[in-house]
Amino acid sequence: MDLKPYIKIVPDWPKPGIKFKDITPLMDNGDAFRYATDQIVEYAKEKQIDLIVGPEARGFIVGCPVAYALGVGFAPVRKDGKLPRETVKVTYGKEYGDDVLTIHKDAVKPGQRVLITDDLLATGGTIEATIKLVEQLGGIVAGIAFLVELSYLDGRSKLDGYDVLTLIPYE
Amino acid sequence: MDLKPYIKIVPDWPKPGIKFKDITPLMDNGDAFRYATDQIVEYAKEKQIDLIVGPEARGFIVGCPVAYALGVGFAPVRKDGKLPRETVKVTYGKEYGDDVLTIHKDAVKPGQRVLITDDLLATGGTIEATIKLVEQLGGIVAGIAFLVELSYLDGRSKLDGYDVLTLIPYE
Repeated sequence: MDLKPYIKIVPDWPKPGIKFKDITPLMDNGDAFRYATDQIVEYAKEKQIDLIVGPEARGFIVGCPVAYALGVGFAPVRKDGKLPRETVKVTYGKEYGDDVLTIHKDAVKPGQRVLITDDLLATGGTIEATIKLVEQLGGIVAGIAFLVELSYLDGRSKLDGYDVLTLIPYE
Repeated sequence: MDLKPYIKIVPDWPKPGIKFKDITPLMDNGDAFRYATDQIVEYAKEKQIDLIVGPEARGFIVGCPVAYALGVGFAPVRKDGKLPRETVKVTYGKEYGDDVLTIHKDAVKPGQRVLITDDLLATGGTIEATIKLVEQLGGIVAGIAFLVELSYLDGRSKLDGYDVLTLIPYE
């Protein structure tokens, strides 16, 4: 199944010059959503995953069905102040200043094999921060899965040494 | 399976006097997550659902696995400015002023039977707004499913005439 027709390219959003890759048409289509999820489920089985971790909010859309299909848990990574219990934090640089991502301290057990999920790999900053959070808690990042990859932004350079699956590459 | 032990009650969060119901321990446990999802899947089958709609971000966690299990799509409801294409909007009152929720104009097709999902029914404001968005697009709200319901806040009064499932009630 060719998933690319289900990604809508939105010109000049969120700002002039950006061609935004909108995944919502893919999620809105039951066949495409299931097919995409099943590809990531197969990958996760090979990697013997114990837990899925995804950053808010589109990482939840990608990761939660994978967790359900595997019968494993899902742990959310959220912006600072959104999780109610004790967290660990990572500060990472974004285009307009720093941002902070957090995860509950008890979300990952030491030695668990974790799959990180998100909708899109661009410059890789969010995922690099998510990796740090998982590893701070003693988790093993056994794989990272995206629906879309913007290869020309070279986010892979930040993920050196990690195993990465992307379903829909843009060169 | 008793799901209540997987909900952690966090006192005085996000502000003094609130006993926050944290669903992350439930999501973090593969068995509990799958069991909870399967209850909603059974309910959705009875209601002959064509599409799942959920408000960000915890509505994604609950709804996306249900969409996957049924082989139907998932359409996100997001805060204003987060969706890249043409949307419809609803303004609704919150404790500290108004908020705006949006959905893509093409997310729901007229006549589709929609299940709305969220983690928690409190006063019902977010869900009331989500119902309006679905109905503006011609969708039929055939059911609404929550993990947790705080019955004492009487959110049900806002959902009069709709079919509601909750898995974990607090009286």
